[in-house]
Order: sequence, then structure tokens, then C-alpha cells
Amino acid sequence: MQTALIILAAGKGTRMRSDLPKVLHPIAGVPMLTHVLSTAAALDPARTVVVTGHGAEAVEAAARDVNEDIQTVRQEEQLGTGHAVAQARPLLQDFDGLAMVLFGDTPFIREETLHAMRDAAQDADVVVLGFEPQDPGRYGRLVMDGDRLDRIVEYKDASEAERAISMCNGGLMACSAQKLFELIDATNNENASGEYYLTDIPALAGQQGLKSTVVTCTEDETIGINNRAQLAEAERFFQNSARAEALEIGVTLVAPETVHFAQDTVIGRDTLIEPNVVFGPGVTIETGAHIRAFSHLEGCHVSRGAVVGPYARLRPGAELAEDVRIGNFVEIKNAEIAEGAKVNHLTYIGDATIGARSNIGAGTITCNYDGVMKHQTTIGADVFIGSNTMLIAPVSVGNGALTGTGSIVKTDIPGDAIAIPPQQVEVKEGRAGRYFDMLRAKKARHKKG
Amino acid sequence: MQTALIILAAGKGTRMRSDLPKVLHPIAGVPMLTHVLSTAAALDPARTVVVTGHGAEAVEAAARDVNEDIQTVRQEEQLGTGHAVAQARPLLQDFDGLAMVLFGDTPFIREETLHAMRDAAQDADVVVLGFEPQDPGRYGRLVMDGDRLDRIVEYKDASEAERAISMCNGGLMACSAQKLFELIDATNNENASGEYYLTDIPALAGQQGLKSTVVTCTEDETIGINNRAQLAEAERFFQNSARAEALEIGVTLVAPETVHFAQDTVIGRDTLIEPNVVFGPGVTIETGAHIRAFSHLEGCHVSRGAVVGPYARLRPGAELAEDVRIGNFVEIKNAEIAEGAKVNHLTYIGDATIGARSNIGAGTITCNYDGVMKHQTTIGADVFIGSNTMLIAPVSVGNGALTGTGSIVKTDIPGDAIAIPPQQVEVKEGRAGRYFDMLRAKKARHKKG
Amino acid sequence: MQTALIILAAGKGTRMRSDLPKVLHPIAGVPMLTHVLSTAAALDPARTVVVTGHGAEAVEAAARDVNEDIQTVRQEEQLGTGHAVAQARPLLQDFDGLAMVLFGDTPFIREETLHAMRDAAQDADVVVLGFEPQDPGRYGRLVMDGDRLDRIVEYKDASEAERAISMCNGGLMACSAQKLFELIDATNNENASGEYYLTDIPALAGQQGLKSTVVTCTEDETIGINNRAQLAEAERFFQNSARAEALEIGVTLVAPETVHFAQDTVIGRDTLIEPNVVFGPGVTIETGAHIRAFSHLEGCHVSRGAVVGPYARLRPGAELAEDVRIGNFVEIKNAEIAEGAKVNHLTYIGDATIGARSNIGAGTITCNYDGVMKHQTTIGADVFIGSNTMLIAPVSVGNGALTGTGSIVKTDIPGDAIAIPPQQVEVKEGRAGRYFDMLRAKKARHKKG
Repeated sequence: MQTALIILAAGKGTRMRSDLPKVLHPIAGVPMLTHVLSTAAALDPARTVVVTGHGAEAVEAAARDVNEDIQTVRQEEQLGTGHAVAQARPLLQDFDGLAMVLFGDTPFIREETLHAMRDAAQDADVVVLGFEPQDPGRYGRLVMDGDRLDRIVEYKDASEAERAISMCNGGLMACSAQKLFELIDATNNENASGEYYLTDIPALAGQQGLKSTVVTCTEDETIGINNRAQLAEAERFFQNSARAEALEIGVTLVAPETVHFAQDTVIGRDTLIEPNVVFGPGVTIETGAHIRAFSHLEGCHVSRGAVVGPYARLRPGAELAEDVRIGNFVEIKNAEIAEGAKVNHLTYIGDATIGARSNIGAGTITCNYDGVMKHQTTIGADVFIGSNTMLIAPVSVGNGALTGTGSIVKTDIPGDAIAIPPQQVEVKEGRAGRYFDMLRAKKARHKKG
Repeated sequence: MQTALIILAAGKGTRMRSDLPKVLHPIAGVPMLTHVLSTAAALDPARTVVVTGHGAEAVEAAARDVNEDIQTVRQEEQLGTGHAVAQARPLLQDFDGLAMVLFGDTPFIREETLHAMRDAAQDADVVVLGFEPQDPGRYGRLVMDGDRLDRIVEYKDASEAERAISMCNGGLMACSAQKLFELIDATNNENASGEYYLTDIPALAGQQGLKSTVVTCTEDETIGINNRAQLAEAERFFQNSARAEALEIGVTLVAPETVHFAQDTVIGRDTLIEPNVVFGPGVTIETGAHIRAFSHLEGCHVSRGAVVGPYARLRPGAELAEDVRIGNFVEIKNAEIAEGAKVNHLTYIGDATIGARSNIGAGTITCNYDGVMKHQTTIGADVFIGSNTMLIAPVSVGNGALTGTGSIVKTDIPGDAIAIPPQQVEVKEGRAGRYFDMLRAKKARHKKG
Repeated sequence: MQTALIILAAGKGTRMRSDLPKVLHPIAGVPMLTHVLSTAAALDPARTVVVTGHGAEAVEAAARDVNEDIQTVRQEEQLGTGHAVAQARPLLQDFDGLAMVLFGDTPFIREETLHAMRDAAQDADVVVLGFEPQDPGRYGRLVMDGDRLDRIVEYKDASEAERAISMCNGGLMACSAQKLFELIDATNNENASGEYYLTDIPALAGQQGLKSTVVTCTEDETIGINNRAQLAEAERFFQNSARAEALEIGVTLVAPETVHFAQDTVIGRDTLIEPNVVFGPGVTIETGAHIRAFSHLEGCHVSRGAVVGPYARLRPGAELAEDVRIGNFVEIKNAEIAEGAKVNHLTYIGDATIGARSNIGAGTITCNYDGVMKHQTTIGADVFIGSNTMLIAPVSVGNGALTGTGSIVKTDIPGDAIAIPPQQVEVKEGRAGRYFDMLRAKKARHKKG
């Protein structure tokens, strides 16, 4: 049976106090919605429908960023979860498979749990996600009848006996798509909020002789985010999980709590990561690399044996080959650095290639932007770029060439050539003391005046 | 009734193991004394007297930094809290209002608590601050007689029954100024330390038929600081409060525990702050800014939509207009950057103005210091400053002008002009390999020799 | 009686998932083996033998790094702790003193504990280290008979009564060297693993009428490291101890949990350390220095009153005299900076000396590497180095001299001289707008084409 996902992502998230729609707030560098969509993609769904509302355009764009095939539909009024799911009906009119309802603000649901819910849907008409929190508090409770789910009861409507139930409602639901829409038709909005609730489904299903059942997950998976403190807490949960996983596969994190990963960071074993390192999206690091303190990496690849930092910034498109050395106060963007090359200090390399074993002096800048366009710099192998060399792109420097300190390179330098900047300083002896005396006198006059 | 504040700030703080007077040790970037003075200023006191002793000059200077009207008096010998308060008498001889006694090393007292004490002084002669700590330990206990405070008993002098009292002495006291000095006259120093204690006041007041009462506060407010570990703990308390407050108003802190605020940091909602950001004093940030990782800000203003960092340092006087972009390894000091301007890499901008939409190339430096004086650099709107341009202040670059890479600009550049650095490199072909061979031979000779 | 140390360091540490031998994984910047060897050196041992196995060459090199007199022996097959100790026999054939067995992966053993074990060996034949963990879990138990140790029982072999014993086996052992080897001869490998265990020694000793006893230590000292999570935990334990110690001696750590020390960091009282500072090995800081946020120091000395950072990197050989100021995005390597000198921004100083009160402008670079050799730069006192000065070493600048902004200095500059870079920019008026128009047209053509 095919699966269609319905992701509810229409909420405003008033308690976030934000102009950004709630589901677009980032965790580990990507919108929380992206976490849900990435995990759910593991089900290989035939259709994915995101129900949008507040900030619909931005949410739709974020959904398409994950996968262009994702469909979206707008819930113009916010009339409850049942109403939200019903908005997907026009897009699923012809779909006779299973519908699974997920939430854009519950980012940590696991693949295994989604698979378990889909499996359970083979033996039950409605599958509801349940979890047993440490403190059940004011969560809705799942009222069982043997192994059947009788109904979901909101905390405020629950009897003392029902409140004693430890199994709580995790929100997610799986049901044949057409049956789900029919059941939603049967819900009503005769409640305090005047909304249509998905939580009424199991009871309605029971009335129709259909069987509801429960699949359980850990409390972590149901973490929902309603304010910035919870967002920070969710980030912390993600980071702690990612840190533990890195340690487990054989990465050394000197101070795990100071390393911040993105959703998709991949790091090989025997890589050593010093304190205070931040990974943005899109980083892969091979085994045996060394990422020194205060480094910031995003969208880059670091090969075996490379040493990065301290204070190195690798931006998207930075590709470091084996044994490359990137040092302090160095920014690398959209550049391939071949094996053994060194860029040790105070340098900007952007839109460039650097050949093997080349050494880039301190203060070097690839002047890649002319005010209108970006241009490419090509540096060969075994090149020695002297300190403070300005490479005005487009420009190339051939294998084995050398540029003198302070060179401004506007035209291609052939291999094995030496580029020499024009003149040296003129030295005027016995003049500095007098010069400073003059300045001091000027300052004194200035103060009086 | 007018209020006079008497702030006790004479202690040495031996356990701090410091040459700096205890009350000048910083929390959140400012002396702990400043926290007390800032909070107490909310009472709009008629007089404020700081009693100094150890490091008196430095403490007096710090007090005047907060408010020039603050008076100071020296306690030459350290003879107890009663003796300390008595030093303020000459300055308050003519003052017939309420005196409130605060402590320079108890920085977290709240405005609300001070107001409550002043209010309570309308119905009682002596008001003492009380709190109920989780662990009462060796704190002095407040012995009540109904709603009247009978006396304060030191832990070491307390009976078993008195030690069972949960309400402890928070130290602060409010009393009519002249009455307070009279009561202090009545104290004696017949105790182990040979000191005059403020804690004797309530009992003495009772003997004179005066009424003492208690106003309570939370335990947090009475955090006192006696060693560096407690100083660090106080800093952590401040930071956690500031982080929670930022989250509450709608700021995203990706990793709250890695963001360090100053006492007066103001941040607008929907600003996103990445991990590892440090705020010094005097920072205001509007809504919707983005402060990237490893940034350091002090004394600056960041407008809506600006993006700062990673690795950006904004120093005092940096004023960023809307949508400004300050990138990595960039230092901005005493400079106004107009809307949409970009300073992306490896740059020092000091004592300058930069016009709207101007782009400052990598490696640019405003040479603002001639060894004696600082000078101003003025850059117009829509200017393109090429990489590694040196702007030797005082100097200006007009609207729409362009400086070529490596320009050394000593004289004003008119609007729409192009500045071109003198010459290009001379290229000598087929020479680099031979040159390095020569160096290697030299090195070999050197090693033999 | 003389003491010989036998340090077991042969294990692979499979659960580390690493190509690096377990005992070489670093804590506080140095291999965990080095911690053990440094602590044990306090016993002033006559001999130290490290038993190596996995990665023997690297482990041997690390041991010799600590002390060239350390001997090593290889355990070719891993046949248990008894077998490991027996490998040391050929090197101790002639040694008739006490042997103490330590473990390379138990880095936090204290000097006091080792002394206590040696002292106890005067009254007993075998001394075993014991500790009482909060959770005894699956540790081996020490079965006592009065004050005599009867035997060590592995958890899996222990009876219920034995499992109730709270005193656990800490692993370390002291015994006359020759007696120890004899007792090991008496062990057998008739157990599940087919290995020879040191833990059999006390029981065997008892059978020979010898007396075994126990010396206890805290649980912290016996922290062993078997995977990366435990390595991170050990690092955290070290750091928390180092932070507490720094606070205790009168150092201010604004945010202790963000400061990372090395094993040998020494910091004087009244030094203020801001958040996010990393110390590599070999740092000494005098009293009253100020290390600002995001600084990284290794192998350097900072004198009284110096201010470092934010974003300063001091590399090995950086020696800062009193009141030196090193600012942001500055790297100092192998350089002496005399009192009151300032290097404030975006600078690389390597292999250099800088005289008193000299001011080094932003963007200055000592070009110390010619592609083959490193050379020295010598700057005198009261020198003003203009921004973006390139000092091509070997080169010197005399006292009181001045280099203009953008100077390329290849030859020595005498004292009091002014060095002036050759030419200024050529200014072409009314050209910039046309130039950008041309670029934009080119871009448009490019897009069409």
C-alpha cells in the first residue's frame, strides 16, 4: 500500500514572538520542518502534502527546498487539526493508500517509529502514536480497551481515573486516506475553541466498528516547540545526540558541549575536534583530520590528514584535499585546495583552485569581485605566493612560480616565473624623530585652539 | 519622605585573593558595585553615600562613574557594619528622611524589593530584609514576635530552637536616618571580633519601644560574593537570567549557554544569535538582526536586518545601519556604516563613516593613527574600495568612486573617480626554480657550516 | 628502598575505534600516558619501565618525550596484566627494590596515593589500591580478612556476599620486584580468557604466608578510559579541577566552563580570563594580565599587565613583556615583544623581536619564510610600523624609526629613519561610473551568450 504524508505546518506559534512562521525556526541549522520532511522521506512516500497557513509562502518555499515534488495546500483559517488535515483532501482525492499525519513542529520523530506506525496500519484502521512521559502533566491520555485504543481524552476533560493513565497522545496518526477524510467529516466543532480535532478520530472510528491501535515512541521524539526556550532545548537535545553519535563512531571531541553540529554533518573516525567548533550545513570530514579551536565550517569537504584552524572559516564550496593546512584568520570559499597546500595566515581565498604543495603567504587575497561579477583565480602546483599578494581575478599563476611579497597580479604568471613588485621603499635617515615632534606640536596647537 | 542610600563598600575581600577591592570585581562586564548602584537608582534617592575603605580611591572613582552626585566617605578602620554605616553620619547630618543600607557585594537585589522595604518603613521603625534559603546553614536567623522582628541572632549564638527558624537575615536595613545613627550609638563592640554590628539594631530598637519588621526577598537576591568561585557563580546566575529573558522576548539563542551578555545588553525580537557570542557593555541590537558565531560586540548599535560575523568585532562607537553586512576577521571601531554597506573580510575600520551600499574589499585598513593623533576617514555612498586599500586618514573618498586593489590613498578621492595604484609586477620567466635551488644550496651550506 | 615503576601501556583500546594507541589519546593537550608518567615521576623512581604493545613505536616515543631515561619493553602478545608485568622482568633482573604497577589509561592517580602505597609496602608484602565507588557495579571486589587483603574477586565470580562489598579493586599494585615476578610465575591462565591476571596475586601471596594490604584513593583517581565518551568525561574532570584550582588561587574566570586549560598551564592571581579561551601546552601567565575572549595560547609567556585578545593567537615562543598589548586577529610566533609594545590588529609576527613601546600597524606581516628557510626580523624600541608594512626577513628596523603605510622593507632601516613606499595612486576623475557600466554591460552579454 502506498503512503501519503500530510504534514501540518500552518500554525503561527504566537509564543515564539516571531515574524517567522514557527516551523521555519531552525534547529541544527535547518528549519524544523526540514527535519520532519527529511525523516519522513525515509518512508519513500508516494505523495507528501504540507498544509501551510501563517507565512505560507515562506513555508512552501522551504518545503520545495527539501524536495520539489512536495505539494502544498493552504489552510486559510486555523480551525483545528482535523480541519487542517481536511485541506489535503483535494490533493488526495484519487489516492487510495495510507495517510500519515505528521507535525511540522515535532522535529525529532524517528524513521523507526514511522515505519512501526505504517506496519501497524496493516492490522488496524487507525494508528495513533503514544508515549509515556516522565511527567504526563497536561498531555491528552490514550484510553485503551485491551489492545484497542478506545479514545483520546484531553487532560481538561479527563476523569481522575483517566488522568492516572501514563500513556499520552503523541499526535501522529495513520489511517487509510479516504477513511481518514470521512472520519474528519464526522467530527464537529462543538467545543470551547470551536475547532475540529483530529483527536476525536479514534472514538468516531470505534463508533463505526473500526479498530484503533497505538504505536509507542520515546518521549524525546515528541518534543514539540512552542517558544524560544523550547527551541533552545530542542537544539540542545539535537546537539547532545549528535555529540554522542560522533564519540560513538570514534571522533574525539575534546569538549563535546562546545561543538555544534548541523543536521547533516558527517565526520570520520580519528578526527580530532578541539573546543569551540561550529558546523553549518553540508560538511563532510574524512578520517584522521584535525579541526582546531574556534573554527567555523559550512558546505565544505575536509580530507584525511588535513589540519584546519584555529580560527579558520571554511565556507560553501571549500574542498580541502589530503594533508592541506588552513591556518588562523583564513577564509576559504568555493575553492579547491590540492593535497599538501598551505594557507596559514590572514588570507582570503575565494573562487579559486590551488595546486598541490603550494604555499600561500600571509595576507594574500584573491580579489574575486570587481563590483559586478565574481572571477576565478587559478594557482598551479608548487607555487610560492609571497605575503600580501593580491591576485586580481580572472588570473592564473603557473606551476612552480613565485610572487614576491606585495605583488599585485593582474595578468597570468607563467610556470616557473618570478613576479616582482615594482619598487622598494625610499629611506630618509634622521627624519622620524623630527616628524613625530612636528605631529606632537600640531596636536598641542590643536588642543589649545 | 526622601530616601538616602548608604552603600557599604569598604571590605577587602581577603578570600578573593586580589589587589582589586572586592566590590570592583566585575559581573557581566561591570563592577558588582555598579549593579547595586544601578538598581538602587530606581528609588530615585535624594542622597547616595558609598562607604569606602580598601582601595578607596578606585571604589570612589567607580561610584562617580555611575553618577557624579554620589558621595563617598572613608571607613579608615574596619570595625564592623554598624561602624561603617556611622561613617555616613557627617554627610547626612541634615537629612531627616529614610536611610536604606545596602551592600556593595550583594549585586542582585531587585528594585521591587527595595521599594517594598521603603513602603514597609511607613509602618515600622526598622525594616530588615529576610529570605528563606534552601539550606539556612550558618546564616543569621530572624527571631519574630508575631509580625514584629524581635531580634537578629547570629548562628553561632543561636539556640537549637532559633536555629530551626527558616527565615534568615538578608542584611539590608531601612530606618529613619537620624534614628539609625542613634541606634548605632547604642551598639557596643563587646563581642569576639570587637566590632559594631548592624544586626544588633532590631533588638536595641525593641528596647526603645520601636517596631522592627521584615520584608522578604528570594534567595537569589542575597547572593553575596566572597571568593572567585562565588564570583563565577554570580556571573552564571546573571547570565542564565539574561539568557532566559532574551528567549522570553523572542530572541533566538541557538546555544544559550554560550552567549554572554553585559549588564545593559538590549536585543530586539527575531534577532538570531549563533553560538559563542560575547557582548561587552553598551550594545543595542534592533529586531531581526543576525549575529553569527564567534562575534564580539561592545558599545555598538546594530540595526534591523544587519548580519554580523562570524568572527566580527564591533568596538565602541560602531553604528551599523539597516542591512549592513560585517564579515569575518573584521574590526569596526567608532564608525558609522550606512545602510546596505558591506565590510566582508579581514578589515580594520576605525574612526570612519561609510556611505550606503558601499563595498569595502578584503584587507582594507583605515590608517587612523599617525603615531600621535587619530584621524577620520570618510567614504561616500556606492563606493567600491578595492582589496588591500590603505586609507591614510584624514582622507575622504567621494560617492561612487573606486579604488584599485592595493591603493594607498593619502589625498581625497573625488566622487566617481578611479584611483589606480602605480605599477604592476615585473615578470621574470624561467627563474623561480633556479631561485629556490639557490636557496636550498644556501641552506645546505648553512647546515654544514 | 628504591622504587621501579612498571606502567602497562600495551592495550589497543578497541572501543576507542582508533588507529592511535589508547594511551596516546590526549587529555588536556597531552597523551594520557604522559599524565601517569608525570605524576609517577614525583616518586623519583630509580627505574621506569613502560610495557608497550599496540602502536608500540608511537607509545615508546611518547614515553621518551617525557623522560629519556624511561625504558620500554614490548608485550608482543596480549596475554593479561600478569603477563604484561612479566615482560618487565628482563629489565629489572638486577633490581631488588619495590615495584609499583601503574596503568597508562588511568591518568588521574595522585602523587599522594602513590606515596601512600609505597609507605604501606614497608609493612606488607603486597599493596593493592582500593576505592569505594558510588556505584560499585561490576568492579572487582577486595575481600578483606581484618586489615589483611585476602583476595581480589572478579564481579562475575563473586558470591552475593562478596558483591555486597563496597571496596573495589583500583588496579595499582606495589610489591618487592623479585617477589612480584615470582608470584606472577605462580599464576595460571586457566580462565575464560586464557590470560594471566595480576588480580590473582594477593590470593597467591596469602597461600605463601605473605601479607597483602589495601591503600584507598578517591573514585576520581581510578577513572579509566575505554571509549571516546569516557575520554571526553576524563577531559571534563581535568578541566573542572583546573578551573576550580585557578579560581582558588585568585584568577577570575568569567565563565569557567568555557576556559580550557592544558596539563601545565600556570596563571597568576588577579589575571582576568574572559569567556572562550583555550590554552595549549606550555603557557605561563603572570599576575594581573588580561586574556580577552576567543584567545588561543600555547607555548608562550604573558607578563604582568599585558592584555591579549580578543581573537589573539599566541603560538610557541611568544614572549610578552609587561603591559604589552596584542589585539584582534593577531598571530604571534617565536617572538619577543618588549614592554609596552602594541600589536593591535590583523598582523602576523613570526621569528621576531619588537622593542619597547613600539607600535605595529594593522596588516603588518613579518615575511619570515622564503620558501626554504625561516629568517629573523628585528624591530627596535619606539618604532612606528605603518599599516600593511611587509618586513622581508632577515631585516631590522632601528630604534625610533618609522615605516610608511604599505612599505615593503627588504633592507635594514636605520634608527630614526623614515621609510616611504614609492608612489601614490593615480586618480582618474569621472571614470568610475563608466567603468561599472562597462562591467554591467559585459555581464549582461555574458548571460545572453
